[in-house]
Amino acid sequence: MNYDQIFDQAIDRLHTEGRYRVFIDILRNKGAYPNARCFAGHNGPKPITVWCSNDYLAMGQHPKVIEAMEEALHDVGAGSGGTRNIGGNTHYHVDLEGELADLHGKEGALLFTSGYVSNDTTLTTLGKLLPGCVIFSDELNHASMIAGIRNSGCEKRVWRHNDIEHLEELLAAEAPETPKLIAFESVYSMDGDIAPIHAICDLAEKYNALTYIDEVHAVGMYGARGGGISERDDAAHRIDIIEGTLGKAFGVMGGYIAADKRIIDCVRSYAPGFIFTTSLSPVLVAGVLASVRHLKSSSVEREAQQESAAFLKAAMRNAGLPVMDSTTHIVPLMVGDPVRAKKIADILLAEYGVYVQPINYPTVPRGTERLRFTPGPAHTQGMMTELVQALVEIWDRLELELRKAA
Amino acid sequence: MNYDQIFDQAIDRLHTEGRYRVFIDILRNKGAYPNARCFAGHNGPKPITVWCSNDYLAMGQHPKVIEAMEEALHDVGAGSGGTRNIGGNTHYHVDLEGELADLHGKEGALLFTSGYVSNDTTLTTLGKLLPGCVIFSDELNHASMIAGIRNSGCEKRVWRHNDIEHLEELLAAEAPETPKLIAFESVYSMDGDIAPIHAICDLAEKYNALTYIDEVHAVGMYGARGGGISERDDAAHRIDIIEGTLGKAFGVMGGYIAADKRIIDCVRSYAPGFIFTTSLSPVLVAGVLASVRHLKSSSVEREAQQESAAFLKAAMRNAGLPVMDSTTHIVPLMVGDPVRAKKIADILLAEYGVYVQPINYPTVPRGTERLRFTPGPAHTQGMMTELVQALVEIWDRLELELRKAA
Ligand SMILES: Cc1ncc(COP(=O)(O)O)c(C=O)c1O
Ligand SMILES: Cc1ncc(COP(=O)(O)O)c(C=O)c1O
Repeated sequence: MNYDQIFDQAIDRLHTEGRYRVFIDILRNKGAYPNARCFAGHNGPKPITVWCSNDYLAMGQHPKVIEAMEEALHDVGAGSGGTRNIGGNTHYHVDLEGELADLHGKEGALLFTSGYVSNDTTLTTLGKLLPGCVIFSDELNHASMIAGIRNSGCEKRVWRHNDIEHLEELLAAEAPETPKLIAFESVYSMDGDIAPIHAICDLAEKYNALTYIDEVHAVGMYGARGGGISERDDAAHRIDIIEGTLGKAFGVMGGYIAADKRIIDCVRSYAPGFIFTTSLSPVLVAGVLASVRHLKSSSVEREAQQESAAFLKAAMRNAGLPVMDSTTHIVPLMVGDPVRAKKIADILLAEYGVYVQPINYPTVPRGTERLRFTPGPAHTQGMMTELVQALVEIWDRLELELRKAA
Repeated sequence: MNYDQIFDQAIDRLHTEGRYRVFIDILRNKGAYPNARCFAGHNGPKPITVWCSNDYLAMGQHPKVIEAMEEALHDVGAGSGGTRNIGGNTHYHVDLEGELADLHGKEGALLFTSGYVSNDTTLTTLGKLLPGCVIFSDELNHASMIAGIRNSGCEKRVWRHNDIEHLEELLAAEAPETPKLIAFESVYSMDGDIAPIHAICDLAEKYNALTYIDEVHAVGMYGARGGGISERDDAAHRIDIIEGTLGKAFGVMGGYIAADKRIIDCVRSYAPGFIFTTSLSPVLVAGVLASVRHLKSSSVEREAQQESAAFLKAAMRNAGLPVMDSTTHIVPLMVGDPVRAKKIADILLAEYGVYVQPINYPTVPRGTERLRFTPGPAHTQGMMTELVQALVEIWDRLELELRKAA
């Protein structure tokens, strides 16, 4: 038994497939987002523009958020010092759970250290509490939901992405008395398309299934108060469990679920990933409180983001670049090969100071490797025009095909 | 299928067993730790003293930590805005991984959003990479290790707590060519005892097993530079993977592993709980950097903590209180019943302004419910003397037995 050899082989496989990942080393410049510094070379930090951040609305830079975090830092200190049950339940946590419950029109909410953990431990726990439960999962669900479903030990049925007929077929095949849970996302973050929430809820009612929605790429950004697609589509009341992150549009870190009191109390009381871990730092929680409150009443950021996304998509389309269909703020450019995607990204960074991360397997299926742009309120039209020019030049240089301009 | 009823029954079970948890709602007073404010009543915040924090060395209040976090907040903003691979790899992350690798004398280190996630996702991933691996687990291992072992899908052998002969028996029963991983803790946090690291490493060598140690309750507190029990006992080089938290003695939040480059690269490249989640906020990482660096060169906090723990243990013993044997900084007082433990804690809070959380199942086995005190450098001897007097009064009032004074 040679452990080193096994580990070496595991790494070699990644090199062979061209998907060994090297992390770019950056620092953002507060107040000047999307500008940042890159520490890759040997000539000191180099200025770059970030095009792939999930701090979608630049709330991680918002003065109200920074101020709230600074205040908490000086009022209570750095960490919480304990789990929620043992010393780590601060007044900020209690307030934020109230604020998030209100955001989604639910009785309660529960904080986790990340969106990943909220999906993993909630699905695991619900699955274990419901004897014989079958979980129905959209085929493009995020890794954290897949982990939670697997760890629940439940039977899983995977339905074709956003295919309602297929979902119904699978639901109808189970006995009526079998507990059922339908898990899906609102905005699918790598393609930028949206789930048919009402149609899914119709099926859930017909077949008496619980519904679980991941709104990680929608909270803060859709709905009049940032309650996500379920708010925009007036469907929140039809969904049993709404899950979100505090690390993307809200700009900080952490995750949560919102649901009725009973479900919240069950997850709070039974989920190992909630119980046995140091709670979120009160500094983070204070920042999120400010962020959620701001985005409940301000739509400026949301509108500016939609404008930027529309502008960039149109500019790419007009230039003949293979921008994918997306009905949201996400702007994916299809490349279809990991080595080429990395090459384009490398040139963008080295020659144009543009940072966009190539997305490869296992984040997206093999053969659909892409560049994923997330323009926000702080990306100017000038920046976007320059970006499209750079891309066209690179497409040309690498002899890639441009579509006929629309 | 009535979902509400199932959830209600799950909650009822907790009430019946007397282990339904109500979280106390507090804010610590920065600069005056262990003092805090409690928001439970209706007469505004009430001053309390915290006796159960895992911010063991009060580093969450340390001026260097606060300052570093404030600086990062103003330099780069609140959140990282992405996963480590997609936009969320800041220069702070790179620096901290270097600092932690150095702390444990390892080639590399890897950050996670929490200690829980580091255990869960690392053990899951190692188990999946090693075909047919059998994992040997101390029976008192933390929930996060148990989760990781279960989620790895590996066969598990549980050995009796700290029982080396039993471990050897189990190791010897497997074929020599079977991959093996031994997972254990250094300081067991609910009892305060310590694993025989060298004896375990001897067995690991004899049976060609990998070793994985959870030093969550030891990093920062033991060893000349805070490298944990493995540093104190000069055993770090014999252990393959050292895991720790950034949320206890280091006072902030997050988790990590340290190991050779090969293992770090494998976990970095294959662990879903590392890959698919927003990275730690740079504000937290900056705070931890300051904390780790400080505790590498300062032993003042460690020594003061050990003195406080020794003083409190002796005072309890002299008063005849059932303090458990503990060779560490943890001071557990055995009660043996969840209702009584809660009663004592309630009186302490309501009448004495003392906050100590009763520890019940599933954190400890049923019938061993206890109060767990964590005196630190900031708890004065006067506070401890008053605490012991309060406990003796309550013991008397509830007609509990005191041992003959030693
Ligand atoms: C759809 C989806 N769900 C959950 C998560 C995890 O959220 P977090 O980053 O807060 O862990 C992510 C991305 O990170 C995601 O894309
Ligand atoms: C032994 C042990 N390991 C791991 C953890 C998890 O660490 P964290 O709180 O950073 O998630 C804890 C407690 O929280 C613990 O007691």
